[in-house]
Amino acid sequence: MTKRAGRERAGRFLAEGAQAVREALRYGQVYEVFVTEIAAARNSELVDEARAADVPVSTVTDRAADGLSETVTPQGIVAVCELLDVSLDEALAEPKLVAVLVGVSDPGNAGTVTRVADAAGASAVIFAGDTVDPHNGKCVRASTGSVFHLPLARSRNITAVFDACRKAGLRLVAADGHAKTDLTRVDLSQPTAWVFGSEAHGLDPEVLDAVDDVVNVPIFGKAESLNLATAAAVCLYAGHLR
Amino acid sequence: MTKRAGRERAGRFLAEGAQAVREALRYGQVYEVFVTEIAAARNSELVDEARAADVPVSTVTDRAADGLSETVTPQGIVAVCELLDVSLDEALAEPKLVAVLVGVSDPGNAGTVTRVADAAGASAVIFAGDTVDPHNGKCVRASTGSVFHLPLARSRNITAVFDACRKAGLRLVAADGHAKTDLTRVDLSQPTAWVFGSEAHGLDPEVLDAVDDVVNVPIFGKAESLNLATAAAVCLYAGHLR
Repeated sequence: MTKRAGRERAGRFLAEGAQAVREALRYGQVYEVFVTEIAAARNSELVDEARAADVPVSTVTDRAADGLSETVTPQGIVAVCELLDVSLDEALAEPKLVAVLVGVSDPGNAGTVTRVADAAGASAVIFAGDTVDPHNGKCVRASTGSVFHLPLARSRNITAVFDACRKAGLRLVAADGHAKTDLTRVDLSQPTAWVFGSEAHGLDPEVLDAVDDVVNVPIFGKAESLNLATAAAVCLYAGHLR
Repeated sequence: MTKRAGRERAGRFLAEGAQAVREALRYGQVYEVFVTEIAAARNSELVDEARAADVPVSTVTDRAADGLSETVTPQGIVAVCELLDVSLDEALAEPKLVAVLVGVSDPGNAGTVTRVADAAGASAVIFAGDTVDPHNGKCVRASTGSVFHLPLARSRNITAVFDACRKAGLRLVAADGHAKTDLTRVDLSQPTAWVFGSEAHGLDPEVLDAVDDVVNVPIFGKAESLNLATAAAVCLYAGHLR
């Protein structure tokens, strides 16, 4: 289940480490927790919390825990969770502020943007096009639990995602470093779906053509750009700061 | 020169990788460039740029390049540069927006915040208290060249830094997750020095007592916090987004 195909087949994924397991127990659907003896001693409250919620807790050897881990330094605690993603319609049922990731292949970036979207009060995050799987272990860890906090949807079909956003009453605004308009001039009075592309390649011209507005985060100094997470933070908070 | 003590003694530091070398040649003071044959072929424009600026370029073996590198995968190009930091008074000569890092020990975070400060048009970044050395290789790389773009100053004496900021007409505003006031309510009409602490420990009570305002970046969802770089991005851009 550390591989995408295995996750799809099983309908489950692994949330690894104390923080992810804690958030999974609180906000997700956990089938089972695997823990080494040492990790159980270190995370006794978490083990108690799982048992109190009738989640089976199995003690495993260090070697078995390593086999369940994607990281170089396994924390010895892993939760088997139900896949997180819901349908587009479900994710967009009460649209306020939405983050749409298009072609974001770096799982750390996808996770950090999910964390920022959660903090900014987004009602959903959509993983669109060739974006990484939200259940990817690095994405889950970088989100520091946020993948469990708000509805996530996935679709390879970018047009379907944009149509669903519009149908839900959202204005589509893409962030692009080369945009002619800057963030301070865009209309954010309506519920907004912010569209973010990959740090390396940005957004394709067809994507930029398909949205309502394309804006940049203005650069006042000599920096060439912001990284994806910091640019997304400025965009997603912009509506709150006016 | 990959170690702090060596840098201090030599008054020089190493900027590693094509991007850092490019920004150093454009904005810094470079004494010499070391490059492997392979890296020279890959970065011929950069080598030409150095030679055009009368900077000596020496071809070195892969082994010598590895010895000059702090990274696991050396890029084979390194510039020997003059130390970047200036005095507090110099850094605060034309104060607009300033970022003050207090006790930020993670070099990646310090570099990313320097990049954000540069993008937001800050006039200086101050590395105060137990903050990492701005010449640390990871800090230089995470800044993607921004350490060369704006004045940097260092002081272990936090009180001296705050006094200098006030003397320069800056209001000191600290970002703290536990603050009672939120960012949207703080006065940003005057030139502001934003004070940021470490991601792990935040800011000490004495530091919070010594500033003019302490504010949080409001969390609208279920996320516990933002990471340092994203929180700093929202704070540093807040004045531009009103």
